[in-house]
Amino acid sequence: MTPAVVPRLARLGASISLEKDAGLGATFADGVYKDVSFSSGVGALVSDADVVLAVQPPAIEAVEAMKAGALLVSFLYGAANPTLVEALRDRKITALAMELIPRISRAQSMDALSSQAALTGYYAPLLGAVNMPRILPMMTTAVGSLRAAKVLVMGLGVAGLSALATAHRLGAITEGYDVRPETAEQAQSLGAKFVDTGVDARGEGGYAREFTADEKNHVRGVLSQHIADADMIITTAAVPGRRAPVLISADQVAAMKPGAVIVDLGAEGGGNCEGTKPGETVRAGPVTIVGPLDVPSALSEHASELYAKNILNLLASIVKNGAIKLDFSDEVIAATAVSHNGEIRNEAVRKAVETYASTNEKAAG
Amino acid sequence: MTPAVVPRLARLGASISLEKDAGLGATFADGVYKDVSFSSGVGALVSDADVVLAVQPPAIEAVEAMKAGALLVSFLYGAANPTLVEALRDRKITALAMELIPRISRAQSMDALSSQAALTGYYAPLLGAVNMPRILPMMTTAVGSLRAAKVLVMGLGVAGLSALATAHRLGAITEGYDVRPETAEQAQSLGAKFVDTGVDARGEGGYAREFTADEKNHVRGVLSQHIADADMIITTAAVPGRRAPVLISADQVAAMKPGAVIVDLGAEGGGNCEGTKPGETVRAGPVTIVGPLDVPSALSEHASELYAKNILNLLASIVKNGAIKLDFSDEVIAATAVSHNGEIRNEAVRKAVETYASTNEKAAG
Repeated sequence: MTPAVVPRLARLGASISLEKDAGLGATFADGVYKDVSFSSGVGALVSDADVVLAVQPPAIEAVEAMKAGALLVSFLYGAANPTLVEALRDRKITALAMELIPRISRAQSMDALSSQAALTGYYAPLLGAVNMPRILPMMTTAVGSLRAAKVLVMGLGVAGLSALATAHRLGAITEGYDVRPETAEQAQSLGAKFVDTGVDARGEGGYAREFTADEKNHVRGVLSQHIADADMIITTAAVPGRRAPVLISADQVAAMKPGAVIVDLGAEGGGNCEGTKPGETVRAGPVTIVGPLDVPSALSEHASELYAKNILNLLASIVKNGAIKLDFSDEVIAATAVSHNGEIRNEAVRKAVETYASTNEKAAG
Repeated sequence: MTPAVVPRLARLGASISLEKDAGLGATFADGVYKDVSFSSGVGALVSDADVVLAVQPPAIEAVEAMKAGALLVSFLYGAANPTLVEALRDRKITALAMELIPRISRAQSMDALSSQAALTGYYAPLLGAVNMPRILPMMTTAVGSLRAAKVLVMGLGVAGLSALATAHRLGAITEGYDVRPETAEQAQSLGAKFVDTGVDARGEGGYAREFTADEKNHVRGVLSQHIADADMIITTAAVPGRRAPVLISADQVAAMKPGAVIVDLGAEGGGNCEGTKPGETVRAGPVTIVGPLDVPSALSEHASELYAKNILNLLASIVKNGAIKLDFSDEVIAATAVSHNGEIRNEAVRKAVETYASTNEKAAG
């Protein structure tokens, strides 16, 4: 929660308690918050709250300290945190998961994954640039010109497009690649070339079709060339709750230019590149692979500013005349509600919890 | 020495020996050099060389292994390295110091300090950006706009102007300051505002005049305001061989915004900022101070490319028909020659060596 968003939250009818020093890492000392009370322990903080707002999934103890029937808004990743979901269900918490905000236009202003991805994408070329033995822009000096570096971004979602924008700003020659051909125009609007593999992935009914073995080989060959040509590669492929897909193989890494850099934004999910060590910067043959974790926390001030506004917009949509009115026919509420009134409402999460529970029973039996 | 420059050096009439793995740190493996021989020990490498090229001042043992009368081209910093200069004199080495290349237009293509400063300046805002909790450009998102950051560059030499250029590329609002009013136009041509203190430093005859106490206070007040307003400050004031001047005091640091970053390029000389720890990144009250050392080595590939060309241009100017012809009436040779034929030719260096020798005698007596 940022000092600027507090009064807007108060105007919805809330009185606001913060954990002591909660904003410190994001440059906000307690003293800059107005009309806010502070508590030291999480238990004391949440015990009389009607609404609890958080970033990371809360600890089980925090859930158990909450009032029955209270509302929790946070990242939850329920399928990966079954015991947390069980606690939320048993405590009759209404839990809205920020990672489940649907990607519809009405909910864009609540979409924390997108706003954090925009920041992450901005940061990736900077991380690459400080780990590269050459500069990104063309530079003309008295002793001759230095050529601009080539930056290839693989995966053109919000993070990938934001990365292309920063790399272009820095004067690099930029290229983007994505299996979705409709991203070509977006990449081009940011000054990048789109890597055209010459294979049309569109099948019947607008869905992507399976490639033949020949096509797969051809695509791989084209990509290998662009990978070998790049001074910096930024990969951004993530599937929430699953292992990140491998986009760059060990032999493609080995064929890269000496001194080239890969910034692997898939590191959180194990990495998009063979050789990535999540959370570390490592040498792999000729290249340096940077595998950053939790990039938004490196941009804590702006990450908090955007997240606080995402949460505010979600709350504003469910508070009417100072009271919370949850409408489960609302697409946003239906999509984000993980637990409510003693039930797990999200299909995928319920399955994950059931699988977890039955595995546990078998282990106990 | 880079692989691309080797053939141009050979065309001057040289046969070239390199230290084994000399280029490895700059991405050049031994295998990519053509028509070059390799030696493992420095002694074997220099013992039959007519010309020795280096980056850092050589070790005394390397000088003693050189042929009498050979030519050495390197950074030397003779006043700070009196025993090295004595060894060069006693070995009758002709030593040309790259840091003494005069700043005249004919010698621009040999000016290694300028080419390295351009790289250092490029890198500084990147170092700052990865240590800042906010982004540099304005960013428009579905949840509102993030404001662009303010970057203040103090000291507008080659490094400072290059830093302004990178910060501007990254979308920051840029400001430059220098005591020399003629730098205003250069800063403005890079999209920056020039901090106008309202005090004209020009005295009679075009020289800078001494400020009155009132003027000093006024200038300090204006700068304090710009310092307090900045999200990132890059300082670039260095006086070769002397302690770097302090541009930002501890109380000015304390008044800065939480989360602001100072990148102190004066760190090599002790720092332009109270609180800088050379070679470290430290928290100082509300801000982070980055004190990088030897920035060009972080950009080793391009730093080597430019330095190799600087050296090539210097050599090309003194080699006629495959033979070295030193003309001491040539402004460049006169300025850079530290030792020749058993004499110390540079006035300032000779004084430093004499002072050092007499201090040693006294200590011994």
